[in-house]
Amino acid sequence: MIKITFPDGNVREYQEGISSLEIAKSISEGLARKVLSAEVNGEVWDLSRPITTDATFKLFTWDDEKGKSTFWHSSAHLMAEALESLFPGVKFGIGPAIDNGFYYDIDLGGRVLTLEDLPKIEEKMKELAKKNSAYIRKAVSKADALAYFTDKGDEYKLELINDLEDGSITFYSQGDFVDLCRGPHIPETGHIKAIKLLNIAGAYWRGDEKNKQLTRIYGITFPKQTELEEYLKMLEEAKKRDHRKLGRELEIYTTDDDVGQGLILWMPNGAAIIEQLEKLAKKKEDEAGYLRVKTPHIAKENLYLTSGHLPYYADSMYPPMELEGVKYYLKSMNCPHHHKIFSAAPRSYRDLPMRLAEYGTCYRYEESGALFGLMRVRGMNMNDAHIYCTEEQFESEFKAVNAMYLNYFRIFGIEKYVMRFSTHEPTKLGQKYLDNPELWKRTEDMVRKVLIQSGITYIEVPDEAAFYGPKIDIQIYSAIGREFTLATNQVDFGQPLRFNLSYIDKDNTAKTPIIIHRAPLSTHERFIGFLLEHYAGNLPAWLAPVQVAVLPISDKFLEYAEGIIQVLKKHEIRTSLDTRAEKIGRKIRDAEMKKVPWMLIIGEQEMQNGTVSLRKHGEGDQGSMSADAFAGMIIEEVKAVFN
Amino acid sequence: MIKITFPDGNVREYQEGISSLEIAKSISEGLARKVLSAEVNGEVWDLSRPITTDATFKLFTWDDEKGKSTFWHSSAHLMAEALESLFPGVKFGIGPAIDNGFYYDIDLGGRVLTLEDLPKIEEKMKELAKKNSAYIRKAVSKADALAYFTDKGDEYKLELINDLEDGSITFYSQGDFVDLCRGPHIPETGHIKAIKLLNIAGAYWRGDEKNKQLTRIYGITFPKQTELEEYLKMLEEAKKRDHRKLGRELEIYTTDDDVGQGLILWMPNGAAIIEQLEKLAKKKEDEAGYLRVKTPHIAKENLYLTSGHLPYYADSMYPPMELEGVKYYLKSMNCPHHHKIFSAAPRSYRDLPMRLAEYGTCYRYEESGALFGLMRVRGMNMNDAHIYCTEEQFESEFKAVNAMYLNYFRIFGIEKYVMRFSTHEPTKLGQKYLDNPELWKRTEDMVRKVLIQSGITYIEVPDEAAFYGPKIDIQIYSAIGREFTLATNQVDFGQPLRFNLSYIDKDNTAKTPIIIHRAPLSTHERFIGFLLEHYAGNLPAWLAPVQVAVLPISDKFLEYAEGIIQVLKKHEIRTSLDTRAEKIGRKIRDAEMKKVPWMLIIGEQEMQNGTVSLRKHGEGDQGSMSADAFAGMIIEEVKAVFN
Repeated sequence: MIKITFPDGNVREYQEGISSLEIAKSISEGLARKVLSAEVNGEVWDLSRPITTDATFKLFTWDDEKGKSTFWHSSAHLMAEALESLFPGVKFGIGPAIDNGFYYDIDLGGRVLTLEDLPKIEEKMKELAKKNSAYIRKAVSKADALAYFTDKGDEYKLELINDLEDGSITFYSQGDFVDLCRGPHIPETGHIKAIKLLNIAGAYWRGDEKNKQLTRIYGITFPKQTELEEYLKMLEEAKKRDHRKLGRELEIYTTDDDVGQGLILWMPNGAAIIEQLEKLAKKKEDEAGYLRVKTPHIAKENLYLTSGHLPYYADSMYPPMELEGVKYYLKSMNCPHHHKIFSAAPRSYRDLPMRLAEYGTCYRYEESGALFGLMRVRGMNMNDAHIYCTEEQFESEFKAVNAMYLNYFRIFGIEKYVMRFSTHEPTKLGQKYLDNPELWKRTEDMVRKVLIQSGITYIEVPDEAAFYGPKIDIQIYSAIGREFTLATNQVDFGQPLRFNLSYIDKDNTAKTPIIIHRAPLSTHERFIGFLLEHYAGNLPAWLAPVQVAVLPISDKFLEYAEGIIQVLKKHEIRTSLDTRAEKIGRKIRDAEMKKVPWMLIIGEQEMQNGTVSLRKHGEGDQGSMSADAFAGMIIEEVKAVFN
Repeated sequence: MIKITFPDGNVREYQEGISSLEIAKSISEGLARKVLSAEVNGEVWDLSRPITTDATFKLFTWDDEKGKSTFWHSSAHLMAEALESLFPGVKFGIGPAIDNGFYYDIDLGGRVLTLEDLPKIEEKMKELAKKNSAYIRKAVSKADALAYFTDKGDEYKLELINDLEDGSITFYSQGDFVDLCRGPHIPETGHIKAIKLLNIAGAYWRGDEKNKQLTRIYGITFPKQTELEEYLKMLEEAKKRDHRKLGRELEIYTTDDDVGQGLILWMPNGAAIIEQLEKLAKKKEDEAGYLRVKTPHIAKENLYLTSGHLPYYADSMYPPMELEGVKYYLKSMNCPHHHKIFSAAPRSYRDLPMRLAEYGTCYRYEESGALFGLMRVRGMNMNDAHIYCTEEQFESEFKAVNAMYLNYFRIFGIEKYVMRFSTHEPTKLGQKYLDNPELWKRTEDMVRKVLIQSGITYIEVPDEAAFYGPKIDIQIYSAIGREFTLATNQVDFGQPLRFNLSYIDKDNTAKTPIIIHRAPLSTHERFIGFLLEHYAGNLPAWLAPVQVAVLPISDKFLEYAEGIIQVLKKHEIRTSLDTRAEKIGRKIRDAEMKKVPWMLIIGEQEMQNGTVSLRKHGEGDQGSMSADAFAGMIIEEVKAVFN
């Protein structure tokens, strides 16, 4: 008999050699129908693989990231089977699952694949899926593996096998198709009910442009047709809401080849959004007792040797500038600079918690191929802060940080979010984790308690904490359900030691503070990218670069219109005045295009009555009122956010 | 006869060989007594030197920079004469005039000079000055010059002579002292009435640390004793107001060896001052129709090749970072980034004037020896903006820029300032200056007109414009009369061509805009450094990091005090609460030390009456009032600045 330990800590005994699927069945038939793969002692396995030792155990369904990943990896094999059937002699590179679906890199010899070919491949995949072939795992010797693919004539697989150690090689097969693969896979192809191939791209073998360019086919699959349809609808909506498209149309930002890839130039409309976000952050941070600081964008190598970012993190940093024999680096994070401000004066328990905040710009190296609009950039302006506190203060500080996140979610109408709480693994203390078991336990317990008490949606992920302490990754979902990684909150009891940070406690002894890293508004780049999609560019009035477009029907009303502008400006309302000799219909259309939240139409009647005619973006006419009454309305809307 | 052209354009004829002093006498005896040197055809000359050709001509007195400079250079020679008389065998390096006084680098062999030696040297200088010896210029051949200093045994002078061309070498002598010198000098030592030697420092010969270290003696002299006394008083006051001392005491900023020299870490108090300055700038720039942008701190080499900063300006920039075969530079100015935003969309005359503003951080390389507190730094956060306008708009735009400067001067109580207006020299068009004579004339005429119409204190400096257009350097004087260079305003018709900037005019043709560069609040570093001295650290309430310190007499009144804090915070008043178990006298003393503008004393009487007892920094008790009335007072003070 072997002992199987479930995630909730329960332990059950089973016959040695039992499969994960059989364990699932022993729990419920319903579960067994939904389950896709399993984690056995920390490794994701096929459901059919026999378990021969005591093990920690977890089942994955479609609702789990790892379940989806298994599903999509198996879908890649299904696509490969279809391709081999349609295009005999096709050679295969690699075919992994990705964040949304899967791809396979293939070599079709001289044949060029076009988007028109994709439906045919989809059809074949559906036909093969219906056969419900099992995915069968088989260990093979290196010699046999090489023989098989030599025979098949696939030099890519041969190259991969050559890099593997004998004894570690497995093949997977379903139907007539055999692939070199580490697995795991779902039990049968029949699980794959809905299939869509999305795109074709070129991809160099092994990502090296000196190698041959292969054809990469992207696809996605689902267990249900309705899920696929929802996904495709979301994709279409996301296309309309693409932050790169909106960013260009609304003149939010630009980039320039002479400045460099991934370096955002914020145009006036973008800078206006930034100003409001920073104003919001300052207001909320002021109220929460944060102190603002301002630090340089560079530092000597020594600072990052102290922090431990160098040499390990060097690949993610810009290369150094050497001056007077000293290496200077662009900062890739604000923490070390803040630690220096903490340690610039002697601190006592009276100074704690000290919350140092800065919208600091950091620079990180991302490969040019990985850069993507505002989402993956090389320069990022971060809503950063570091909280230096005592162990006694940690719980309430962490609670306040969470409350700030939830308040922002409310302000921005973010209805769905997940916090991934990564904890340490006690057996790896002193290796993967800083060796302070007591502190790990106490801080993790406090974090868990706060998450539960605050009613926060979270999942706990063991053995994924940072070296220095437990961390929380925050994922948010846009209005159309797309997932964005917002930020990471981190508890840190390592940096205070490395920087020798201390405070004098009530008992007159020097103690080491704990640090909380937090960035609830993420970076301006990522957050504004998210907001553009989330609001489909229709930013709420408090955040819009221009809040009100004043549209006089003709020149005759220009003076009155200018008077209205003055009234609005007095209340710090951001306005534009359309002085062009265009028809009012055109002026409205253009203001709608620019997604200005409010339009004020000014004509004969308005001038005589001393009013304005109100029009709301996307909603049309809203009647007329006095300029002051309108200003009052906007002011209330803004207040609701800031107060 | 020769023709002498005076600065006002008047031309007079004189005998060939007449001296500047004789010309001065021909104007007035009073002038002749005050005059120190003269500019003849653009070169500063001794007054006694005969003029043998037609010449443009200008006389300098103590009131002119160049007059002062001549005076101090002659004072250096007087000090050298005194040193040689006191320490026979002393060898001399160089002895120039500097911004405030002069120095001479000397080699006393083994003898160590101390501050105690200075009065003796001063006395000797006064004794020699009274002799009223003439400074006599003499052309010498290189061979004779070498022979003289070989004989004297001064290897430093020999090294200098070796670098000179035969035929260009002159000696100056007064009394028994002879020096290698290009001149010019004042007529006689008797002009030097007041003398103070200020300091001794080490200085490597020719600034190279591989060379021998010489002794540098700093001094200053004046034509009147009272002027020296005022200067010394100012120096003493400046010492108390030293921004480095105040910056440390008031926890405004810090620097750190691990971050790097000249890189300012703004502590919470400094960041709070910055926040108010930026708020002010944004308010004033909003009102003046500026648009804010935000740009990265780095750019590819190519951007600076286009702007022309590379390769010529490379020594003032941080060295490049090489990434993917491309060189990236830290930006040393914001202009090129702004130009890229201007050109990111097609522009029409309707878009102009376009005023792009950014508090952008630039990085420049300054030698470590030149770094000084906040005044000379390597990272600077600049109140930058670029105005893109048509030629027709230039005058009113430039006028508005000046009005903004004057408004800031009023807000900060800057009573004395000078604008140095540098113009081009028509004969150097196409060489030193961009070859567009019409545009030079028109813009310079407009600038001059605006300066005069606006009643601005300015001096015009011919032949010192930038290559690209006329410029204005703004010098301001602190409350104790010390001069600070604030910023440079520049008219630029070169960059628009280099960046190919254009707009479509009414007539549908593409035209090139003119650019105005301006930075009225300078850099945060320099301006806050200035403000600390100007206000002696006693920042006005609107600018102070903490505006109000609430000081309860004992714990009993803490709750009431906290209520007061809430009232003040509601009005966004920046407060601190002293919760320590200290006597009220101590609390007041500490708040005074921190230079908090207002203190509220809270005790039994205040709690019963629902009032606060008011105390003003440096001025003591101000009676009692309600918290709301006090808040109203502060709000009015802040409004007066921002509105």
